[in-house]
Amino acid sequence: MTARVLNGREVAKTLMEELAMSVGAMPTPPRLVFVRAGDDPASASYVRSKERLAAKAGVRSETRVFEASVTQEDLLREIASLNADADVDGILVQLPLYGHLRASEILDAIDPAKDVDGLHPVNVGLLWSGRPGLVPATPAGLIRIMEHYVLPFEGQDVVIVGRSNLVGKPAAALFLARNATVTLSHSRTRDLASVTRRADVIVAAAGQPGMIRADMVKAGAVVLDVGQAPVDGVLRGDVADDVAGVASAVTPTPGGTGPMTVAMVVANTVHAAKARRG
Amino acid sequence: MTARVLNGREVAKTLMEELAMSVGAMPTPPRLVFVRAGDDPASASYVRSKERLAAKAGVRSETRVFEASVTQEDLLREIASLNADADVDGILVQLPLYGHLRASEILDAIDPAKDVDGLHPVNVGLLWSGRPGLVPATPAGLIRIMEHYVLPFEGQDVVIVGRSNLVGKPAAALFLARNATVTLSHSRTRDLASVTRRADVIVAAAGQPGMIRADMVKAGAVVLDVGQAPVDGVLRGDVADDVAGVASAVTPTPGGTGPMTVAMVVANTVHAAKARRG
Repeated sequence: MTARVLNGREVAKTLMEELAMSVGAMPTPPRLVFVRAGDDPASASYVRSKERLAAKAGVRSETRVFEASVTQEDLLREIASLNADADVDGILVQLPLYGHLRASEILDAIDPAKDVDGLHPVNVGLLWSGRPGLVPATPAGLIRIMEHYVLPFEGQDVVIVGRSNLVGKPAAALFLARNATVTLSHSRTRDLASVTRRADVIVAAAGQPGMIRADMVKAGAVVLDVGQAPVDGVLRGDVADDVAGVASAVTPTPGGTGPMTVAMVVANTVHAAKARRG
Repeated sequence: MTARVLNGREVAKTLMEELAMSVGAMPTPPRLVFVRAGDDPASASYVRSKERLAAKAGVRSETRVFEASVTQEDLLREIASLNADADVDGILVQLPLYGHLRASEILDAIDPAKDVDGLHPVNVGLLWSGRPGLVPATPAGLIRIMEHYVLPFEGQDVVIVGRSNLVGKPAAALFLARNATVTLSHSRTRDLASVTRRADVIVAAAGQPGMIRADMVKAGAVVLDVGQAPVDGVLRGDVADDVAGVASAVTPTPGGTGPMTVAMVVANTVHAAKARRG
């Protein structure tokens, strides 16, 4: 068997077209504000790619860049002002922040209704309580890929490898809400291969390039690869190449879950705008 | 093998002694206020048993009882006044409420720092983010029983049967934080027996009397029974009697996880008081 390739770029394109139509029907387009206060060069280019994609959907976006001299109080004041601004629908603080800043306090200060990253405790709590809220972009993108290719959720054994707040844990909540049986595995899991081998769906989100090998995958499983790490200058996922010979479907790296993450941030902004404006 | 009985009453007693010592060292004892606005007779006796247990630990408690004529606004005003009262450490709204009341809005109005039920979205979000907060009593009690009997968490395959907000989901977060590999199963799980049979620890929280039978349990597994339903006038758990012949340890019903739930509500009040008073 050669696995079907789940083309994240294509799914993202379809989603962006839907969002553009949805935004076109709104009296005022949604507005997303990025806050950047760090010197990580990758972070700057990541924000630019999000801004470009937002523009494609008709979402207004802008980036507020702070120098290294910025204080915790400056940033908290900025967040408070964005929270209070009725014309702002989404706020995204790009991590990592400068080392002297306390990121957690700054992220907690964002109005949960504008938290398009979905990482505020209120949004995490709403997600796990089965209530509407903003959901982290990467796991939301996994669900959207599954839906696009009409892959089943109900009763599926889903094994998630990696338990980060950003991906593994919220992915568990989303698959559970769709009636999958969900296992959260991680670095302390005993005999990981025996766990992944029973999965109908594997979410590889450990950040260990190539760690999921063909012998860890049941024939016909769906494998979603969230890992993205540069290896010798090439972006590599958590899923080894030989998995494509066993799985029924895999996301490629690049071009799989990555493009969906950026698109889902834009989708969250549109959701947030609609929810806020009633 | 005949399973060791995990005596919840004994664990609760030890916990209550610890709490009484801890409260004795505080300048002012913690204060817990129950709000009861419903006509369920079981709920009245449940509140009384919590009040009695609170008294044993030296925790002040009182119950505010509302008649069926109470309005949503009355209750929201009551919650606001309890939130504002610096002498109140814990607030517990006993469910079910009268049918005309919107329970979710009332529970959300409780200050998360006084939410000794641990069900406020903020506390749920803190739990899943690995941050300090108030944790629902029943799953916290399961952890305490495991700790009391020095049963291992790390690398254990824990299968939770039932995915309620009250038990199944928070139990998953607590076992995961202790480095177990956690599976959440439920009514839509395909072939539940094959899932539970691989578990080192089973948390039975489906509310289906006797549903976990000996043939669904691996030899030597630990089985924690959260189910409590009256069958022909007798309180029955989710775990069938024959499981004791296979498991290495089980909680009895009654006298297992039930007494721990009430004790953990008192423990949460003491934690809340300490956290609030710095």
